[in-house]
Amino acid sequence: MRLAPLLLALLACLPAYAAQQARIPEAALATAAQLRERALADDTGWKVVESLTTEVGPRLAGSEADARAVQWAVAKFKQLGFDKVWTEPVTFPKWERRSEHAQVLGAHAQPLLLTALGGSPGGTVEGDVVRFPDLAALQAAPAGSLAGKIAFVDYRMQKFRDGHDYRNGGGIRHNGPSAAIRAGASAFLMRSAGTDSHRMPHTGVTAFDDGLTPIPSAALSSPDADQLARLLALGPTRIRVALDCGWNGEATSANVIGEITGSRKPREVVLIGGHLDSWDPGTGAIDDAAGIGITMAAAKLIADLPKHPARTIRVVAFANEERGLYGGKAYAVAHKDEVVRHAIAAESDFGAGRIYGFDAHVAPDAQPAMQQIATALAPLGIESLPGKGDPESDIGPATESGVAWAWLGHDGSDYFDLHHTADDTLDKIDPKALAQNVAAYAVFAYLAAQADGNFGSAPKPAANPAK
Amino acid sequence: MRLAPLLLALLACLPAYAAQQARIPEAALATAAQLRERALADDTGWKVVESLTTEVGPRLAGSEADARAVQWAVAKFKQLGFDKVWTEPVTFPKWERRSEHAQVLGAHAQPLLLTALGGSPGGTVEGDVVRFPDLAALQAAPAGSLAGKIAFVDYRMQKFRDGHDYRNGGGIRHNGPSAAIRAGASAFLMRSAGTDSHRMPHTGVTAFDDGLTPIPSAALSSPDADQLARLLALGPTRIRVALDCGWNGEATSANVIGEITGSRKPREVVLIGGHLDSWDPGTGAIDDAAGIGITMAAAKLIADLPKHPARTIRVVAFANEERGLYGGKAYAVAHKDEVVRHAIAAESDFGAGRIYGFDAHVAPDAQPAMQQIATALAPLGIESLPGKGDPESDIGPATESGVAWAWLGHDGSDYFDLHHTADDTLDKIDPKALAQNVAAYAVFAYLAAQADGNFGSAPKPAANPAK
Repeated sequence: MRLAPLLLALLACLPAYAAQQARIPEAALATAAQLRERALADDTGWKVVESLTTEVGPRLAGSEADARAVQWAVAKFKQLGFDKVWTEPVTFPKWERRSEHAQVLGAHAQPLLLTALGGSPGGTVEGDVVRFPDLAALQAAPAGSLAGKIAFVDYRMQKFRDGHDYRNGGGIRHNGPSAAIRAGASAFLMRSAGTDSHRMPHTGVTAFDDGLTPIPSAALSSPDADQLARLLALGPTRIRVALDCGWNGEATSANVIGEITGSRKPREVVLIGGHLDSWDPGTGAIDDAAGIGITMAAAKLIADLPKHPARTIRVVAFANEERGLYGGKAYAVAHKDEVVRHAIAAESDFGAGRIYGFDAHVAPDAQPAMQQIATALAPLGIESLPGKGDPESDIGPATESGVAWAWLGHDGSDYFDLHHTADDTLDKIDPKALAQNVAAYAVFAYLAAQADGNFGSAPKPAANPAK
Repeated sequence: MRLAPLLLALLACLPAYAAQQARIPEAALATAAQLRERALADDTGWKVVESLTTEVGPRLAGSEADARAVQWAVAKFKQLGFDKVWTEPVTFPKWERRSEHAQVLGAHAQPLLLTALGGSPGGTVEGDVVRFPDLAALQAAPAGSLAGKIAFVDYRMQKFRDGHDYRNGGGIRHNGPSAAIRAGASAFLMRSAGTDSHRMPHTGVTAFDDGLTPIPSAALSSPDADQLARLLALGPTRIRVALDCGWNGEATSANVIGEITGSRKPREVVLIGGHLDSWDPGTGAIDDAAGIGITMAAAKLIADLPKHPARTIRVVAFANEERGLYGGKAYAVAHKDEVVRHAIAAESDFGAGRIYGFDAHVAPDAQPAMQQIATALAPLGIESLPGKGDPESDIGPATESGVAWAWLGHDGSDYFDLHHTADDTLDKIDPKALAQNVAAYAVFAYLAAQADGNFGSAPKPAANPAK
């Protein structure tokens, strides 16, 4: 009976057992097909993205623009006819970027374009650069070996549809600074976690391990990383890095929530959403005005149907995803006693490329309903890809509490060309692809809200603190 | 006899009559074919471009880096084995860029990315923006109608292989500021003269008509121009433009000249070259390290032949092209009595795209030789395109003095994606295309240097000052 332990292990990964097999009525499938076609011809999603990126622009969590984004979201939900609109406070430490410069010194003097990593302290540092091909090489540098030096991790991220090399790029960004400090470096540089070749450094959050004194940490644009690598090949290269940035007290922003009230089971919600904040260099079009636009528009199209679906459609515009899922965590805490009321959750936070894959993490009894949804999504070019998905960022904490989730996977081949750069602007979004995204979310949310039975959301036992 | 005036008019456009029909010996054509293949497999051009863009980097005319570029060019000519290397001084007013910022004010507050136009004064200006679709619309604005306002010309340049829409983009940059001043504006903005959609504003020289008081003048990146246009569509839009830049005395740089001495007619030169200076945001890879690399490498490959060609190959790295052809003009003045000694001239200053067209402006008797050169270029995918060419920038003044010229036209479809931006860096050059460029210049220069007869260079009578 060697299968038994395996089955048990598999079941342990799934939400608790569903009491009733989920199934979607035929009439709902017919309505979803109409909804899908209407969404493909509709520009609500585009207009929402245009409005947020134009009227608010960059909206770094805790900034004046972030507060305007919250007002914008409340007004937009109301304008789109949502039945209920409210905010829930999210408090976090505030980080600010003021200026950032770097300069090669000496015989090859020239500027280098970089951007501070979110969470970096400010400071002006001069030192010889020591290049490492990847994070492991930096982590292997002996303590003290980089005293007075600037560490430079020169890993070039590769393009993939599912963006999986961000594990490496993001890993360097998260863990590189602490490794540099341990080796004694006075500053940390990395080749941007990106796949473009423009003078567009990619920012993003970093962290410093407890007990370490943070050092200025920044990412060079890819051409600047090339340039620095070439200069290092010529000989010792001394540079100056001058960052003016850092923590500045606390800020309170908000998750903004809009609902289309369900017709039969209004207390049960299908949660979709994106995050409202953005990094500051761009206007946060693909990251994540797209997610806001896709999910607001999907819900609005559902609201326009002659009859609301059984369950409530809840759209959440999450606060401060970028500096550590503050909005997603606050949401999970605020709604910790409502896990069962959350039928299923899906977030759009991977740009506006065409959605190519569908996956869901639900109870075994709910798989037939998921298969029905997959069939309804297929005309959009979306494949069922069991086991390929992940819960997107902000719904992670809720899914950890036991909420069932679905994944609608965007083609992210070009996502890391733009991600966290000044180039993340409206012109980079293909309106046709965005409409396909809206159609996919509308079909998914509508069918999930019409399904009989449930998807297996159930509170998980608290993690064993001894583990 | 209605043809007679037409013929006379045509002849007046051509260099003076050639005494001897130019013709290229068969042996030279055979050598050129070998040279062509060798050049396609050679990376000298790439290495030169890499060296200049890496070791010197951005080299704004008159800057410390520009002086380093002059030293670099002298050293590089020597290293490549040129027979003679010298510099000729070029003096010009020095313009400096220190910082540049813009900001939408009020309810939609957000930064805008722009870059000062070369020659702009500094200054901080606030005002409502008035948008014009093109230069003609701004020029039609009544005097005083823009008092206290900021003029914004929102013309979007189109892509063409020969880049001909730069006439519009460059025309706005040159003439827009004066038109804005005449209408009373306190600052001038334009959509960059470029064809990309990145947050990469394109700089470039502007000018102010005599008698006008210059105003801060800058170009927005294309996405920022989109954004400003969208904001203006929502209502009055007030912005602040803060430029710290301006004139700062005089500088003396140099044309740097290297020669491969001719074996039989060493006093006659075939002039090829590019310009050494660049704008400051990028490292001037396509504009115009490419031209320097292509022509240095072409001459070097010719020098490596068992026997030098009859005429001297002269490579000129021109100073300060970007702010008004100072190097080209200084060269024409310094060599004004040597027009006949300049057999023919060709400059590479349109990037590093594959050369697709060949044209020459020579005496009628020299056309058969030009046809021979065209035939030798054809295996490189280069077409004979009579009447399609222009003398590139820096050789313009020499051709106005009567020097015959040829045009080797680069495919410029993507040139204005990068031109005068921070993105003009080495990674944008395709080494294979660059080798094709080198092959084309090597074949052209070698055959022109081996041709019997001449191409019709002859001093032109001074222009009638009354006209």
